[in-house]
Amino acid sequence: MNIGFVGLGIMGSAMAANLLKGSYRVTVWNRSAEKCRELAQQGAVIADSPRAAAESSDVVIAMMANPDAVRSVRDGSDGIIAGLASGKGLVDMSTVDAETSRESADLAQQKGALFLEAPVAGSRKPAEEATLTIMAAGDRELYDTVLPALEKMGRKIMFVGETGSAARMKLANNLVMAGMLTALCEGMALASKSGLDEAQLLDVLDSGAVSNPMFRLKGPQIAANGEFPVAFPLKHMQKDLRLALQLAESVGQPLFATAAINELFKAALAEGWGDLDFAAVGRTVRK
Amino acid sequence: MNIGFVGLGIMGSAMAANLLKGSYRVTVWNRSAEKCRELAQQGAVIADSPRAAAESSDVVIAMMANPDAVRSVRDGSDGIIAGLASGKGLVDMSTVDAETSRESADLAQQKGALFLEAPVAGSRKPAEEATLTIMAAGDRELYDTVLPALEKMGRKIMFVGETGSAARMKLANNLVMAGMLTALCEGMALASKSGLDEAQLLDVLDSGAVSNPMFRLKGPQIAANGEFPVAFPLKHMQKDLRLALQLAESVGQPLFATAAINELFKAALAEGWGDLDFAAVGRTVRK
Amino acid sequence: MNIGFVGLGIMGSAMAANLLKGSYRVTVWNRSAEKCRELAQQGAVIADSPRAAAESSDVVIAMMANPDAVRSVRDGSDGIIAGLASGKGLVDMSTVDAETSRESADLAQQKGALFLEAPVAGSRKPAEEATLTIMAAGDRELYDTVLPALEKMGRKIMFVGETGSAARMKLANNLVMAGMLTALCEGMALASKSGLDEAQLLDVLDSGAVSNPMFRLKGPQIAANGEFPVAFPLKHMQKDLRLALQLAESVGQPLFATAAINELFKAALAEGWGDLDFAAVGRTVRK
Amino acid sequence: MNIGFVGLGIMGSAMAANLLKGSYRVTVWNRSAEKCRELAQQGAVIADSPRAAAESSDVVIAMMANPDAVRSVRDGSDGIIAGLASGKGLVDMSTVDAETSRESADLAQQKGALFLEAPVAGSRKPAEEATLTIMAAGDRELYDTVLPALEKMGRKIMFVGETGSAARMKLANNLVMAGMLTALCEGMALASKSGLDEAQLLDVLDSGAVSNPMFRLKGPQIAANGEFPVAFPLKHMQKDLRLALQLAESVGQPLFATAAINELFKAALAEGWGDLDFAAVGRTVRK
Repeated sequence: MNIGFVGLGIMGSAMAANLLKGSYRVTVWNRSAEKCRELAQQGAVIADSPRAAAESSDVVIAMMANPDAVRSVRDGSDGIIAGLASGKGLVDMSTVDAETSRESADLAQQKGALFLEAPVAGSRKPAEEATLTIMAAGDRELYDTVLPALEKMGRKIMFVGETGSAARMKLANNLVMAGMLTALCEGMALASKSGLDEAQLLDVLDSGAVSNPMFRLKGPQIAANGEFPVAFPLKHMQKDLRLALQLAESVGQPLFATAAINELFKAALAEGWGDLDFAAVGRTVRK
Repeated sequence: MNIGFVGLGIMGSAMAANLLKGSYRVTVWNRSAEKCRELAQQGAVIADSPRAAAESSDVVIAMMANPDAVRSVRDGSDGIIAGLASGKGLVDMSTVDAETSRESADLAQQKGALFLEAPVAGSRKPAEEATLTIMAAGDRELYDTVLPALEKMGRKIMFVGETGSAARMKLANNLVMAGMLTALCEGMALASKSGLDEAQLLDVLDSGAVSNPMFRLKGPQIAANGEFPVAFPLKHMQKDLRLALQLAESVGQPLFATAAINELFKAALAEGWGDLDFAAVGRTVRK
Repeated sequence: MNIGFVGLGIMGSAMAANLLKGSYRVTVWNRSAEKCRELAQQGAVIADSPRAAAESSDVVIAMMANPDAVRSVRDGSDGIIAGLASGKGLVDMSTVDAETSRESADLAQQKGALFLEAPVAGSRKPAEEATLTIMAAGDRELYDTVLPALEKMGRKIMFVGETGSAARMKLANNLVMAGMLTALCEGMALASKSGLDEAQLLDVLDSGAVSNPMFRLKGPQIAANGEFPVAFPLKHMQKDLRLALQLAESVGQPLFATAAINELFKAALAEGWGDLDFAAVGRTVRK
Repeated sequence: MNIGFVGLGIMGSAMAANLLKGSYRVTVWNRSAEKCRELAQQGAVIADSPRAAAESSDVVIAMMANPDAVRSVRDGSDGIIAGLASGKGLVDMSTVDAETSRESADLAQQKGALFLEAPVAGSRKPAEEATLTIMAAGDRELYDTVLPALEKMGRKIMFVGETGSAARMKLANNLVMAGMLTALCEGMALASKSGLDEAQLLDVLDSGAVSNPMFRLKGPQIAANGEFPVAFPLKHMQKDLRLALQLAESVGQPLFATAAINELFKAALAEGWGDLDFAAVGRTVRK
């Protein structure tokens, strides 16, 4: 199976490199050519357009930053879709909304090709170490075909349903993350105002059944209220909370806690903290 | 240092046994004598009243189920206080409210004795394996004296401040736990109503930065919506949420998310689920 | 000034009749011709299409049930827009979203015509008695021109800003209504569960500074929990709450109370009460 | 029927004057004697202690500022209780909590006397114009006896149940008031941030079914965000919200909207606005 790989950012470069290590033949394309050259040294072939990457491959993977970036490499005369044909497959591993995925699925289908949305959970390090979690949705047949390749990039791979399901799964995942973090922020604010030591609270939490890496990472940042290193921008988390509430509304599920949490994120946005890490909601909580 | 140990329930028995293993001389008392005999086989001396346990020891530890039980062994002519004297110490490892601890501190002080509240986080297994987390508060001098003994019973021991601080620390800890669990319940309810597989959501969560033992334990219980094994009754968690909100009010800290979460727990109580595990709040969320 | 009037439902018929009483020349169109004949008896001319109503008038008023109905009389070869020309004006008195209004404004402008959105507050009786409240927004020049005619239909007429502002004003108005009603429902539920007489609470409220017609009308319905006569369907109120929260998000305004209230309305919708009056949220509150 | 009247503040003076106008024989006592002299000019007899006022009357009315003030005239050798005897009655028209009322009822009963709690809704002007709303609870027999006298002071008099019920009724009433005001504040904040004119929103609200005196009074104050004249201090309203939530908890009634509203009031308190009028919550909403 020849694989095209479009989008060589921090994540994409590492993922394509892992495919090469796994002995796949990989044809790459990236807006900035420099990243292509790095991959070429590891054995990749360089395509001169997303379309060319698709034409020379059985399956083309896209790994772009957002829906607009996906459209920019997907559509148009030089786009991936233009290079698809019957029997080929498009696997979009970018994090996009369900709408964008359904568009991609329709466009692929019109060319007789198959489509899979396959967003990942995890950041640079898991990408390099091939320990990503990959949630795939769409054409099951394509999933079965590309599973061995996905296993070169991630540790936990799962098929979650029809196109759009992976996007929804990420919303549910992010809702839980935002809720956990807000609970932590409220607990820490209460501790602090009550004359307790927040570091000790973090210690207590970490020594019990709720111990988790996110609290270990972000707890001290929240206590310091400093310059949160941006793992996931607050404005993106608030957008996901909004989308989760809209999805909940459409399926008749009230979410009382999430609604309150969303307002806290909105208040943080109104303070101008949208580009900080989402842990900056702690500032709003302790105001 | 001779240690008195009053209260040999599931937790107390294991803790006293660990003190004996650590070569302490331990004098025990329990309402039901049978538990005393088990400890005697491991080397304990049996006292015939809480007072006697205190009289024959340098430091007496109480490990009772709730504030009323503490008072029953603490007060009266056969109570621990009656056996205290200048230079002795009382360490209450029961989970009680700040009010009860301050009472105990006052009563000990009137006898010239020192006092420490030292509630534990962790249940039967950590008690047996001596891996409890112990939050101590009150007289620092007594803390320094008993620390070697506490280290026989727990793995993480911390001094968190003046009397009452340990009770407040537990409230902050429980607030975070309730918030995390509610976030999980809302995420799972959203997943379920959106046609996603809740087990897969649990898988995604467990493969990322929020992975934690509580989700692994309770997530499948919530999905099954069955007969939650009671680790911590819902009515006790709701009581702690109420106390946390009261504490927050007294220190000027709004808690928007916790307030919403408390209403969900109240709704669950109103449904009659107070004696179930607190994970039963998931039933209320998904109604 | 000749006036075209499109849409002779309960509201439109009464409003057009008031224009006729005010000595305006009115050309009417309605999907069902019977309503036209009633107005003709009061002096109206009957047009055979929305376009004809616009062609024969200086200003054409639309009074339709919802955005789709507006589009059905506005667009196409027989629609109002087709009958507009430079110097004419379109006044849409239907309750529509800001988006639909901006579409209408654009379409009118392409024909050189002016546009005003002018939704009304009030139902059948105020329409008949010409005591409606009319919120107008869009072209100020057109507002000044039609003000004398609007004054034949309403008692309080105000110009609230650029196109879309009237729709936003209705959202703010409905947000307050929903909040008031929910506060009433929670107060009544508390009274009832506490062994108080809800009718007495309504009496107390009505004898003080918060006395208002909505409480007098809906309070007894909520207490009876019967078959709420539908003044404003719950599903429409929930939609307005959602739109208000979206608007608030776009302008950086957190709305903690409204977010909680919206979840209560969503819970009521999930129970299947969307077609009942919005006072049915009281059922959800007291569950 | 001879009436004792203890407490001649702004409210009490006006109420006692209305009893005198109604031809009752009234014996007054007040901490500051000057107020007594004003009443004496209108025909009142002056007592030299609360006890004396009770001894010389069939029924003694107390109208104090708060529970502590009630206790100061009720208890002790010069207090009202000391002057009660079998067949007499005590009517406490102060606003107190249910606890204080039950204490008063017990103390009166021990002297063979009857007790009524009868807090009022309304401020100075209704007190002067005898248009207060009076909620009475306790001994029905005493209610029937004093009703003619109550009718000299108020326009709407109602018996709401056993001792404590009137206090609970006030909580339910205040919960609704706080909810209405918060809904208004959120609507106004949304209007303002969306470029609408808040005065126009107030106009729209006032021309519809939700028109009420509180919005007319406080709406412009909230828009101006100035020095709210204090009709009811924010800290007292927050206390009532807390008590209402506690009552709700004790009777198994979740209050999602009120819980969020209470947090807004707590946030306002934390800002230091407790002594401002409760309309100052508008500042917190629009932050």
